[in-house]
Amino acid sequence: MQISINPPKKDWTSLLERPAMEVQQLDEIVSAVLRDIQENGDAAVTKYTSQFDGVDLEQFLVSEEEIEAAKLAVPEDLKAAIQVAKTNIEAFHRQQRSTVEIVETMPGVKCWRKSVGIQKVGLYVPGGTAPLFSSVLMLGVPAIIAGCQEIVLCSPPAKDGGLHPAIIYAADLVGVHKIFKIGGIQAIAAMAYGTQTVPQVYKIFGPGNQYVTAAKQMVSRAGIAIDMPAGPSEVLVCADQTADPSFVAADLLSQAEHGVDSQVVLVAFSSEFIKEVETALSEQLAKLPRKEIAAKALENSAAIVINTRSEALDMINLYAPEHLILALEDVTSFSEGIINAGSVFLGNYTPESVGDYASGTNHTLPTNGFAKAYSGVSVDSFVKKITFQQITAAGLQELGPSVEKMASAEDLIAHKEAVSIRLRRIKQQ
Amino acid sequence: MQISINPPKKDWTSLLERPAMEVQQLDEIVSAVLRDIQENGDAAVTKYTSQFDGVDLEQFLVSEEEIEAAKLAVPEDLKAAIQVAKTNIEAFHRQQRSTVEIVETMPGVKCWRKSVGIQKVGLYVPGGTAPLFSSVLMLGVPAIIAGCQEIVLCSPPAKDGGLHPAIIYAADLVGVHKIFKIGGIQAIAAMAYGTQTVPQVYKIFGPGNQYVTAAKQMVSRAGIAIDMPAGPSEVLVCADQTADPSFVAADLLSQAEHGVDSQVVLVAFSSEFIKEVETALSEQLAKLPRKEIAAKALENSAAIVINTRSEALDMINLYAPEHLILALEDVTSFSEGIINAGSVFLGNYTPESVGDYASGTNHTLPTNGFAKAYSGVSVDSFVKKITFQQITAAGLQELGPSVEKMASAEDLIAHKEAVSIRLRRIKQQ
Repeated sequence: MQISINPPKKDWTSLLERPAMEVQQLDEIVSAVLRDIQENGDAAVTKYTSQFDGVDLEQFLVSEEEIEAAKLAVPEDLKAAIQVAKTNIEAFHRQQRSTVEIVETMPGVKCWRKSVGIQKVGLYVPGGTAPLFSSVLMLGVPAIIAGCQEIVLCSPPAKDGGLHPAIIYAADLVGVHKIFKIGGIQAIAAMAYGTQTVPQVYKIFGPGNQYVTAAKQMVSRAGIAIDMPAGPSEVLVCADQTADPSFVAADLLSQAEHGVDSQVVLVAFSSEFIKEVETALSEQLAKLPRKEIAAKALENSAAIVINTRSEALDMINLYAPEHLILALEDVTSFSEGIINAGSVFLGNYTPESVGDYASGTNHTLPTNGFAKAYSGVSVDSFVKKITFQQITAAGLQELGPSVEKMASAEDLIAHKEAVSIRLRRIKQQ
Repeated sequence: MQISINPPKKDWTSLLERPAMEVQQLDEIVSAVLRDIQENGDAAVTKYTSQFDGVDLEQFLVSEEEIEAAKLAVPEDLKAAIQVAKTNIEAFHRQQRSTVEIVETMPGVKCWRKSVGIQKVGLYVPGGTAPLFSSVLMLGVPAIIAGCQEIVLCSPPAKDGGLHPAIIYAADLVGVHKIFKIGGIQAIAAMAYGTQTVPQVYKIFGPGNQYVTAAKQMVSRAGIAIDMPAGPSEVLVCADQTADPSFVAADLLSQAEHGVDSQVVLVAFSSEFIKEVETALSEQLAKLPRKEIAAKALENSAAIVINTRSEALDMINLYAPEHLILALEDVTSFSEGIINAGSVFLGNYTPESVGDYASGTNHTLPTNGFAKAYSGVSVDSFVKKITFQQITAAGLQELGPSVEKMASAEDLIAHKEAVSIRLRRIKQQ
């Protein structure tokens, strides 16, 4: 970790700089694959699955037999753990449903909003170094609660042509039954445009590598909604003398093991504390199976000694971390100043990994500073809020003249006339 | 209008097809302007304002003198109308604020969401053929309610180097005081990257022409959030024999006058009704100042006779109109089947133009079928929802073992260890 002690404010931006993501270079290959799949459907998906995943598949849809086999393959204790996570995620996300409240803005003028689930959604669950069945819960549970009618899940096939049983099991458990063994750009293309076997969807969710991210951003220009732009995962831990250095080290490592590009930042109030964390880091790192990845991620990471709590808050809000762990004495009052963060973990017994899996909050969060403008995934992400209004003749008599004046002032006379013709009729009655 | 009578379902998609938007051709010029302004700031903004708007400006920021002059220039009756609209928009949008509700998903595991206004937002208000001060209210009011700290507004200068007084007046009234005389691509670039005089923002809102839309989509790839993709405005009116053909004609014209590319669709249950609407259309059209625009828009529009209410509902949900007017006998029960629409207007005395200006709902809505996945602008659009969680030692003892199992199954051992190290400590205590 690069240690900085009381850096001046003018250096903060460069100190906290994330590595630039080079998306431009990918555009050519991504747009070629998108176009091919848009034109040639399943045949093109088959071709790229062979080319990129090294698997020749005759059928992408996970069969009922495969679902049954997955249910048998997942150990009972893991099933029980997944059930705990599902129950908590449901409890937290159910509370996010909104009820219709009619606002009578003027007598006779009633306006309201109604949340309606997006009819067709696509969930992408990456493969790669770890079978991320937890992402299935994090996307599938809110999609079901939102009332989405058609939910499609894509995940890249392993070399043996299958998916990890826990991914299939979790999908089936939450109620997602259209599971396709398709990964990468070809999955995003198949869901965006539809193929002979994959239904077209209106919004695509889920993390992925740079190719998946570029593909999502490209189809979003064609009107397919996406959850949010994605970047490497990251955590900022802000800890004072009441924190346990070994807990802090464990939290930093749990982020660092994601990938060599993971971002880890420690903000503390003394050099001694940082040294203690570093000692704990090297002890714990040695025991990790993914120690090379974690060590590499730590190399690019920053540990910063800062003078005051107020400066720490400013630095956090400048960085806008995806995950923020606050191991501080006055954690409640401090947390009230947080403006930019994806998900915040308070206190010594709230490690990020509980939120990654099972406490109930969503783990699909804005990275790369996007927490300044974006929220994490929630039931909101799976609904549209449609506004409705109904006005009585008396209400229109009250409100209409203001509309007539504003429309005239905007030189939109047909807008005015749509009111005037009705007001004239009401007067005649 | 192109009249179709009971078209078979297989023809619906082509019948309701919107003209394709050619965004590709614009990319080169848009990205060149974006890059120039990112590198050269105000100097480049000055250059393009001269080139595109034909005005040489020394200062983009609207001065206090200009604000005071605008207040004097707006007639009192228009001020009163704007006040009515503002009051209603505030009433409807205030109800959209959310309160913090703590969910204890398990004993000792507390999770909640907190809405925080996006610190810096940019509002774009187009100029062009009409001074759209109503858009200032529709964007400024929710931004203020959301608690956004820095709100920047850009609107293109007229040939005399000024903005329409009603735009300045409305901005000042709602509490937006950083008003810049900058339009088009250069406005989006200035707000996305910041210049010497224009602050950088995190999210950009507002309608605009194809150049503005392309610029918004391009900066969104760099992580600046945008409200939604935009296309030409549109209305679908669904009317039965209880509707008044002259009201329907007035509503269709109020949409058609927006631009030659406006989309207007009439779904009715008899040819006779459509004929009556057509008669009313030609009568009313003749009197409109913008009759050439409206006539052109009507040429590309569709009137469709449909057999059943259920088919009408299917057609509406397939088209996903930005604005939907339902002039039907059973309007309440019918409206319950609406899944895809931006804003819905119920009954004979609820013309779209009340929602465009003053009833309280927002008029920034998803066009081009995007209502299938997008909501209109609301207070939600101006906040991020940050999740928080706090777990007690007892809570972690309950929840931790499930997290350990899931993390192990995903081969993320450092994730597991962040829990295990704490559970071991708790046991020692």
